[in-house]
Formats: sequence, C-alpha cells, structure tokens
Amino acid sequence: MLRTRLDLDRIHAARQLVDPVFLDSPLYRCDALGRRLGCAVSVKLETANPVRSFKGRGTELVTSLLVERGGTAAVCASAGNLGQALAWSGRRRGLDVTVVASRGAPAVKLDRIRALGAELELVDGDIETARERAADIARLRGVRLVEDSLDVETCEGAATIGLELVDGAPAFDTVLIALGGGALATGVGYVLKTLAPAVEVVCVQPAGAPAMTRSWHERRVVTTDSTDTVADGVAGRFPIPEVLDDLLAVADDAVLVRESSIVTGVRLLLEHTGLVVEPSAALGVAAVLEDPDRFAGGHVVTVVCGGNVDLDAYRGWVYG
Amino acid sequence: MLRTRLDLDRIHAARQLVDPVFLDSPLYRCDALGRRLGCAVSVKLETANPVRSFKGRGTELVTSLLVERGGTAAVCASAGNLGQALAWSGRRRGLDVTVVASRGAPAVKLDRIRALGAELELVDGDIETARERAADIARLRGVRLVEDSLDVETCEGAATIGLELVDGAPAFDTVLIALGGGALATGVGYVLKTLAPAVEVVCVQPAGAPAMTRSWHERRVVTTDSTDTVADGVAGRFPIPEVLDDLLAVADDAVLVRESSIVTGVRLLLEHTGLVVEPSAALGVAAVLEDPDRFAGGHVVTVVCGGNVDLDAYRGWVYG
Repeated sequence: MLRTRLDLDRIHAARQLVDPVFLDSPLYRCDALGRRLGCAVSVKLETANPVRSFKGRGTELVTSLLVERGGTAAVCASAGNLGQALAWSGRRRGLDVTVVASRGAPAVKLDRIRALGAELELVDGDIETARERAADIARLRGVRLVEDSLDVETCEGAATIGLELVDGAPAFDTVLIALGGGALATGVGYVLKTLAPAVEVVCVQPAGAPAMTRSWHERRVVTTDSTDTVADGVAGRFPIPEVLDDLLAVADDAVLVRESSIVTGVRLLLEHTGLVVEPSAALGVAAVLEDPDRFAGGHVVTVVCGGNVDLDAYRGWVYG
Repeated sequence: MLRTRLDLDRIHAARQLVDPVFLDSPLYRCDALGRRLGCAVSVKLETANPVRSFKGRGTELVTSLLVERGGTAAVCASAGNLGQALAWSGRRRGLDVTVVASRGAPAVKLDRIRALGAELELVDGDIETARERAADIARLRGVRLVEDSLDVETCEGAATIGLELVDGAPAFDTVLIALGGGALATGVGYVLKTLAPAVEVVCVQPAGAPAMTRSWHERRVVTTDSTDTVADGVAGRFPIPEVLDDLLAVADDAVLVRESSIVTGVRLLLEHTGLVVEPSAALGVAAVLEDPDRFAGGHVVTVVCGGNVDLDAYRGWVYG
C-alpha cells in the first residue's frame, strides 16, 4: 500500500467535480513521432481545452470545494498556467481570483489571466518571489491561498489523468511526466503505481531547473539559487517537502534534460504530430532523445501538459 | 421527417464500430478567438487523433463493414486525408489498401499514406482524375471502391460528430462546416437538423473551389473546369448528385470565402487557440471574418476537420 497524501477514492470522486471539458483528453499513438524516436509513442493531450494546460483539472477541484465551504476568493502564485486555470474556474463560480506572477512570465499567459477577469499582480523575481507575495496577500485579505503541488487538490486533480491512462491505454511501458512543483508527477504517478504498478514512472526536468530532481535523488530537499531554462512552467527552486515525500513514493526515476533537447522536442512535436506545445510539454520527448537506448522498442506515453506559447519565441524554436 | 440517404439508427450504431480514438473529440469554447471574431466560438477538434483528421470516423465504419462481409482490399481516391485514414483503418484490419492521389497533393500527406503501409498511386491531374483512376483499379482488381461522400458510410461516420455536438455543447446558434465532397456537411448537418433543428447549418467552401456551393444555390449539379485554392482538402470540381440532394435537405446556407480569409483563419487559429490546422479546417473562421455582422453576439461551433499541413507552406501562412 502506497503511502502518499493522495487518496484513490478522492481522485475518483474528483471526476464528478471537474468540468467535463478537462476530462477524457485525447490519448493516441503517434506513429511518425515514434519512428523518429525509435519507440512507440503515445501522447496524452492536455492542451485541447479552454486554458490549454492540465491545470484546469486541479483548479476545478480546488474551486468546487472552496465554494462548497462558502469561500468567495482565492489567490495563487503562478508561472502562468495555474493562474489562467484558477481564473477560469473562479470566473464560472463567481470567485474573486488574484494571481501573482513574475514580470518575466510569457506575456501571452499574463494576457489570458487578465482576460479571464482575474486580478493580476506582477512581481520582480521568479516564481518563488511570487509564492511569497501570494502568501502575504492571502494573509492580509484572509482569502484562500492555492499552493500548487502543496494543496493536495492540485495533485488529485492532475491524478485524474492517471485514471484515464490506466483505463484508456493499450499496454505501455513508461509514462514520461514533466516535473516542476510535482503536482502532475505525484498525481499521475500515484494512480499508476496504485493501479498499474508495472508501468515505469519517469519524471523529467530541465537541467537548468533541477531542484526537485536533485532532491529526489538525494532523498532530501535540495534548493538552487537560480534557474535557467526555456521551460518556464517548471522553473521552481524550492521543492516542497511534502511533495518530495510523495514523489519519492511514486517515481521510478527522475532525469534532467538539456535545453537543446527540449527545443528539439518542441520542434518534433510540431513536425510529427502537428501539436503546438510549450517547452515543459516537450520534456518527455527530450528524455527519449537523450537516452534512446533506454526506451528503444518500448511504448512510452508522454503527457503533453501545456500549449501556451509566445508565438515569437515559438517561431525561433521551430523554424530556427 | 428529413429525407436523406442517412439514418439516425445507423449513425448511433456506427459509434460501436469506430475505434474510440476517433470518438468524443474535444469540444470547447475559445475565449480569445471569440473576442477576435466578435462572437462566442467553440471548436470541435478533429485533429487530435492518429490521422489528424475526421476521416477516420468514416474509414473505420467502411472497413468494419467490409471485413464483416469478407472483403480483403479497398481502394480510394484521396486529396490526402481520406487515404491516410483508410490506410490506418485498413492496416489494423489486415486489408490491402490502395490510395490514388494527385501528384500535387501535400508531400506530408502522401508520406504518411505510404508509412501506414498502403500502396500509393500518383496521377497527374487533380482529385477528379484520381477518382477516375481509383474506379478503374477497383474494376480491374475487383476490390471495394471507397467513394468519399457517395458511400453513405463516409457520411455516417462523419455524422457521429453531429451526435457529439448535440450531446456535448451548451446551446449554440450555428455550426460552420467545411464543404468539399459533402460527407462532413451532410453527415453533421443531418444529425443537427434531426435532433437540434434550431441550430443553423452553414457550409463553407473556398471561392476558388465553388462547385458544390454553386450547386446548392442553383439546386442542380454545377461543375467547374478547375480549382484554385490553398484548401487542398476540399478542392473538388464534380459534385455527386446524391450528395447534393442530401445537402439540399440539411444545409441552411452555403457560403464562399476568399483565399486571404482562409489564410487569416489558419493564422488566427494558431494565435488564439494554439491549433495547427490545414486550410480546409479554417473555412469556418474565414466565414465569420467575411461576415462578422451575421454572427455577432451569437455562438458558433466550427469543426476543425484536419491538421495535416506541409510545414514550409504553413510557415508562410502564419508568419508571412
């Protein structure tokens, strides 16, 4: 029996609280990408929804429960996707949503947060600075602080992806999961290790933002002073101890990949699958590119977790 | 009671014969695109599957029934997407598939047909030349000729999209459907007019390939000598009389759009929804761009019917 903060019954129940637009996302095999990578590749596509990332699953759960308990407002720090999802979920439930983000976050993500009616506060610094400021706002205003990966609802929302992988996939050997704060990895990993323990759970993080991966290998929280990666969605520096504990329980491996591999992954996903993905969503492909022998002949599923890109930057990645 | 060749019970039954990977495709509202177009816009996304177009729904039905009847081979003419879908459906059922296509079809579509193990025969000329050659091959070899839009299975496969629109959508006013041979338009249109008759069914065709639209307006088959459009998927010249009859029964309108609007539509779908679409899949957006007052304040659903693009051409469309 796996010991984490997550609970399978609650994850099943979560499906009833999440807007169906986020559930049962496409899962399909991509022959052309597989030929290029030397293994069978399926994608679990989390970009074909109103917020273009998997984060809506978690924010739907958070806001449903918050409204049930009489809450009227929420605040979060975000690299962009969580804020957009919380704004979307909050808007349809009449919640006041505040999002704190780094001034350096992609403009397209910030614009969409504003367009969804949330109050956006920008800070100098990175996601860790934004987390501090969001906590301050929550204290000052007495409103719900939504902490990605620490709030178990964010993990259990993401975990609904795991249920769909177990139900919907033909036999596969490995699931490749982008690793940032850890909600996606611990959520999906928990379900797989509970219901399909033979499937290898491999977390992938940029070498330029390695804090959680290093922590997993050393089995203790390791922080970094800075991050340097194109994958803005997963660029944290301070792993959360409770999330690390869960990750230690469910991940079979955590690997780091180079920036050049991430960018190649973004390009290959366009070329061979026609998908526009943000760099975080190409981490799985990058992992196969860097260690093809490991995956050769097997069947991997990669979770395409987000597709919010700045189109100018994107042009540079895919057309050089 | 609507009189067409289609049958609602058979369409419901088709869902059992079509691989689930093609069914229940994403349907969601795109706020950013809606703001740009001045109306609420939802997309029905038919590109997130192994063949990146809606055609798999039809070929799954065709090949299932063919195998039931003991068939072992099939041939079709294709602008690219039908051939790819027939190759995919045939491969998994052990059928010998031959696809006849124009030498001028996008290389990426031809490559994928070959990669799926089909025999590919190229002809000089357009889709109408390919249709003649496919019919010859069927006669010579005594194998099943799959005729897009004429074979009712291709229409009823496409019609399963209509069931999902009726089940899954919040109230919407108009559905915008790319019009080529007519399988998509007659299929989706039939279901809507049967189960949700208040929804306006608007077919959209390039002004550079207007044969079916002209035929619909004149209520008789009108052919053209040539086509000139970037939307290679819908560039037919010889409307099929039986399909025109069905279209007359189910379409509320058929409109023509300019090439520049189609290309703008392709770009807007990337910018505002992050979707890579082929020009045929941007026809609905093009229709709104050309007549914004008609749709202002309403809620339109556009069927994003295919995403197989040549990336060099695509770069030109979206980055100029």
